[in-house]
Parts: sequence; structure tokens; C-alpha cells
Amino acid sequence: MTKQKINSKEEIELLGKKLVNQIEKGKNPEITFTLRNLSNIIYDKKTGTLKLGDKKGTRNFFNVAHAKKFLQTVEVASIIKKELLDSGKHEHLRGVFYISKRTIPGTNINILDEQVESDKAIEDLEVITGLSREQMHVSANKMGSMVGNVTLEDSGDTIDCSKLGRGGYSIPSITDELSFNKVSAKYILYMEKAAIFERLNEDKFWQKNNCILVTSQGQTTRGIRRLLQRLSDEENLPIYVLTDFDCWGFYIYSVIKYGSIALAHASERLTIPGVKFLGITADDVIKYDLKKHLIKLNEQDITRMKQVSEYEWFKDNKDWQRQLKMMKDFGAKAEIQALATKGISFISEVYLPTKIKNKEFID
Amino acid sequence: MTKQKINSKEEIELLGKKLVNQIEKGKNPEITFTLRNLSNIIYDKKTGTLKLGDKKGTRNFFNVAHAKKFLQTVEVASIIKKELLDSGKHEHLRGVFYISKRTIPGTNINILDEQVESDKAIEDLEVITGLSREQMHVSANKMGSMVGNVTLEDSGDTIDCSKLGRGGYSIPSITDELSFNKVSAKYILYMEKAAIFERLNEDKFWQKNNCILVTSQGQTTRGIRRLLQRLSDEENLPIYVLTDFDCWGFYIYSVIKYGSIALAHASERLTIPGVKFLGITADDVIKYDLKKHLIKLNEQDITRMKQVSEYEWFKDNKDWQRQLKMMKDFGAKAEIQALATKGISFISEVYLPTKIKNKEFID
Repeated sequence: MTKQKINSKEEIELLGKKLVNQIEKGKNPEITFTLRNLSNIIYDKKTGTLKLGDKKGTRNFFNVAHAKKFLQTVEVASIIKKELLDSGKHEHLRGVFYISKRTIPGTNINILDEQVESDKAIEDLEVITGLSREQMHVSANKMGSMVGNVTLEDSGDTIDCSKLGRGGYSIPSITDELSFNKVSAKYILYMEKAAIFERLNEDKFWQKNNCILVTSQGQTTRGIRRLLQRLSDEENLPIYVLTDFDCWGFYIYSVIKYGSIALAHASERLTIPGVKFLGITADDVIKYDLKKHLIKLNEQDITRMKQVSEYEWFKDNKDWQRQLKMMKDFGAKAEIQALATKGISFISEVYLPTKIKNKEFID
Repeated sequence: MTKQKINSKEEIELLGKKLVNQIEKGKNPEITFTLRNLSNIIYDKKTGTLKLGDKKGTRNFFNVAHAKKFLQTVEVASIIKKELLDSGKHEHLRGVFYISKRTIPGTNINILDEQVESDKAIEDLEVITGLSREQMHVSANKMGSMVGNVTLEDSGDTIDCSKLGRGGYSIPSITDELSFNKVSAKYILYMEKAAIFERLNEDKFWQKNNCILVTSQGQTTRGIRRLLQRLSDEENLPIYVLTDFDCWGFYIYSVIKYGSIALAHASERLTIPGVKFLGITADDVIKYDLKKHLIKLNEQDITRMKQVSEYEWFKDNKDWQRQLKMMKDFGAKAEIQALATKGISFISEVYLPTKIKNKEFID
């Protein structure tokens, strides 16, 4: 942790030193960074992740089109250095916005007016410095819970996630600074729905199957993605993603595995190529007689289905094309809660153990 | 806990026994309950809560207008008895919907088609039996975190909320079955925003000020309201609510204190008349020079301001009318994060300790 902080400070300072050096030499201050435009986002088949290409851009202080953004980037970098890294404290995106919203001295012009500007500056700084937002101590929404056979260290506290009752460990927005003490679990089950997490936790699924349960609510936060990635990398744990049979669920899986366009620059610290889909499939719908619990696709679902089926990583994958074709043929989606019609604990006692035993994953 | 379960079962069984008795006597089966219509919701000035009046309604099986709802109510009651209370398990609203969606034997008619029907049946059963939804083992969304000087028992685990790092205890959807072991805290600070919770937790505010921090995200869930009420009642702890200076924040406070129209029938188990508002006020905006961080009211804000100012409990309260008038004069609202402009830890080191010391609450 200490080592990481020193590096973050050094990287931010390096940016400042470069600029001072340019100014002292009488040059037009300039920042160079890899472009985050759509044209520079590529799907790397080798690593199986969305990432940035090689195109570079520059931003100059003495350039009418660049000056404001240049100033915003430097102001936010300075706040990160002075307010956050020096003190060891963390601040949310909204807080950083308020702090950087100050007026340029001697004028009545604000350095920035909208949060989107400071958010952009932070993302730019991720590309410029190579530091993640989390390493710069900037957080976003806190979400999600964890239970199971893992003991972790969080700010000096030792937390045994097998002794946290029905509630569990509330995952912080930044998970880079946690460390894993004792992990006896054999795999991680990550689920989109907290309702399913409560079902599996009440049934002590993690105890009977020696695993870890993690949930978010809807889309997976960066904090949870990083937590899952670290457990995968550092503890060598397989991760299975449990969602509904719909394109929103497929996309939740897709983001965890391949990354997303918006965060392509952060893929290295967030994606988990080894993750497997364990959610409801078209085959489950047939095998477990859930057809009468299907829900007709609405227009949004149909549009999303077309988009998802054309993403390169789904397009080239026979198993996914088969699922998407069956969804189209059904004209319908299914929710994981439909399994409750087979019995409240059917999911913990039959469905999941069977699928895991038979390795019925989609990759 | 065991005692409570037996009572729940008895109450549900009582409903069944009454119906069987009527049938055996050749009567038209009938359920009587207090009406939940708007016309029967009153604001009780004495207790300071929204609650149901005395108007009663009946539902008969042999009545074309009642038959379907009657059947749905009995079906859901039966699921609650057989699937949940008998097994000791809990199920979410969505799961109860799927289980009760079955076809009436010998027909192709579903007992119900939409979740709103099973949700209504559960609310009706709350009024009919006097049991809360939680006592019937039906849960809803899981949300929120807690840290601080409280140790609780959750399903056999002893959880010390002062040793849960940055994350905290993830609050379960049902909090009726928790018990409080050791509470050395002197008060509870409940906040609308998880970002502020993370700020105060990082600053160890709860340790320095001997309190408990609880957060939700936006509107407060039933689980959190019940948790706060129990801590207030059983441990005699004052509760302070920390929100933005806007009508959405005022309403979050209002629901915790007075209840809501939708849950007027459950007020007794959810409202906390003693709760005090500690959020941003118009006076704070002036005192701490936050005027330049005000955000102009939009149309929705203005509509909501009118509605809120006309609620009886706000209308009769000079302090609230003053706040609402100042908001109108500003033509603007303020976010709690604006305090970050005074320094990242200004909220923990100056703002909150000062307000609490000077008792700058709104009641």
C-alpha cells in the first residue's frame, strides 16, 4: 500500500515536472497521451480485451482550442496530488468536481462548470500518467456485498467474510487497497441480483460448496471488477457470472470479461479474460421447463439483442450465437427468479451444483 | 426469533382457520380488513405519524368483483405459510410472484399475471394479519451499509461493526431478526449518500464521536428504516438524518420520521418520531458561504417543493416553512458535497461536530 502511494505521487509529480521543465525552456507546455476516441479503441483478439490502440494526441496550453482543457487537467492533477495523495485521503468524483470548480483568480470564470469536465480530466490523467483512478484516490459509487470463505485486511481490520451473517461485507468503492489474508474458497460466484445473493447466502451455499459470493446491483462497479480481478489473479480463483437470460445480463458478463468502450483505457486493471458465464441459458429454459415463465422481448430488448450479437467477441463465438438465436426464436427472455417455481432452494441445491459439476459454462 | 416465527405462523393459520370455519358453516367466505385507500390514511398529530383510519372493507369469495383478489390473497397466504414460515426461509417479492403465478388446476387461467398483484396481496395480508411483510419472511431490495460502535448478532454470527474497514456491514433486506449485543455509541448518523458515508468512515468520525454511521442510496429501504427504529427504541439512541438541501432530501427525512402514504399501514413498525434533521440547511448555505455552489431549482424541484410544503407535518412547522421559503428565495438547492470546497474533511472535523454540539437540528 505504501509503495503504491509513493508511485502514484511520483507519477503525478512527473507530469508537473515535465510541464515546469517545458516552461523554463520557454516552450509551449504540452501534454501527450494515447487517444481515447472510438477510432483508437480496438478489440485485441490475443488478450481478449478491449483496449486503446497506438494513436497519440497532444494538448497545448497556448492553443485556444486546448487551453481550457489543459488548465482543467492540470488543476485536477494538482488537487489529486495536494488534497488526496499527500494526505492519504480519498474523494468521490462529485467532491473532486466541487473542489476544482473554483474561479480563476482575478476573473469571474470558473475553471470548470460541470462534473463531466472533471470526470474527463480524471480519465485523461489515467491515460497520461498510467495510474488508475483508484490509485489517484478518486472513488465513485459504493455498491455490492461479499460473503464466503475469504478473510481480508481492510484499513487495519481483519474481516472474515464467513462470519458476517445474512448481510455480508459491504464492498468499498475502492478495492485496490484491500489485501487477502486467507482464501480457502475454490471459486467465486458473482451475481447481478442481490435477491439471489440473499437466497444463496441463506442456504449457506458458499459453505456447502466452499466458494465466495459477490453481488452488485445491475452493472458492475469498477470497485467490484477490480476486486474480482484481484481474487482471480492473486488467488487463482475461477469466476462464474450468474445473470438473467437477457442481453443486459449477457452484457454484464461481457464487460467483466472483455471490458467496455468507455473504460477501454483501464482494461488491464479491470478485465478478467478467464471469467465464465453460468447464468440462465436457453438450454436451461428447456431443460427445466421454464418456457411458461418466459417474458416477451420488448423493443429495447430486441435493439439490444442486435447490438450485442454484433460485438466482435460475441459474433465470433458459436456458443453465444446459438444462445442469441434461441432467444430470437423464443422471442423472449427469462429471469433467474423463475427457478423459484421449482422450489425456493432449487437454485442452491440442484441448479447451480449440477451446472458447476457438469461444467455447463459458456465461455 | 423463535417466538416471533411461531406468532407469524399462528396469525397466518388463524386466517385459514377462519375461512375453513365459514365454509363449514356454509357461509360465503369473507375476509375483513382495514382499508388502505387514500381516504382512510390520516396524519395522527398525537403520534406524529401517517396511519390508517378505522374504515373497514370486506372481500368475499362469491362476489364476481372480489373472487380473483380473494383467491390471490389466500394463495399468497398459503405460500407464505408452507414455503416460508414452515421452512424458516425467506423469499423476495419477485420470487413470491413466480411461485404464485401458477395456473388454476383444470383451467388455463393464471392465479395472477403481474408482480403488482402478489405485492398487493402481501400488503393486504399485512393489514389482515397484523404481521409485517418481514415477519411473513418476504424481503425486498437489499441496500446500505453500517459501521460504528455496535456489535450485533446476525444468524449466529457476532459482528463488530467497528472492525469492518472501509466497507462496513452490508445491511440485509430484513433486519427484524438481528439482535444488538453491545452498543456503546451515543447516536446514529443516517445519510442519504454513500459518498458521505465513505468520507466519514475514512475520517473515523464514528470512532472520534462515538456513534454509528448508516447509509442507503437514495430512498430508505424498509430494512434500514426498521433497523434505525429498533436501534432508536431498544438502545435509546438519537438518530440524525443527513441529506442535501433539496426537497428530495427533506422527503427522505420525512418518510423516516412520519411515514409514507404507501406504507401508512406499516407506520408502527417503521416510523421514528424522534428523528432529527441534520442535513444542509439554508442557514448553512449562508454561514459557510456556499451560495456560489447553489444549483438552480429545475421544474421538478419546484413542483416537489410545492407538494412538500403542503404536507401537513411540514405546513404546521415554522422551522420547515422557513427553510422552504429560503429555498424559494434562493431559487436553488445545495448538495452536501459542496462542503468539500471548505476542505475534504471539513464535514467531519468542523461542520458535523459544530452542528451536533450546538444542537442545530430541525425537528
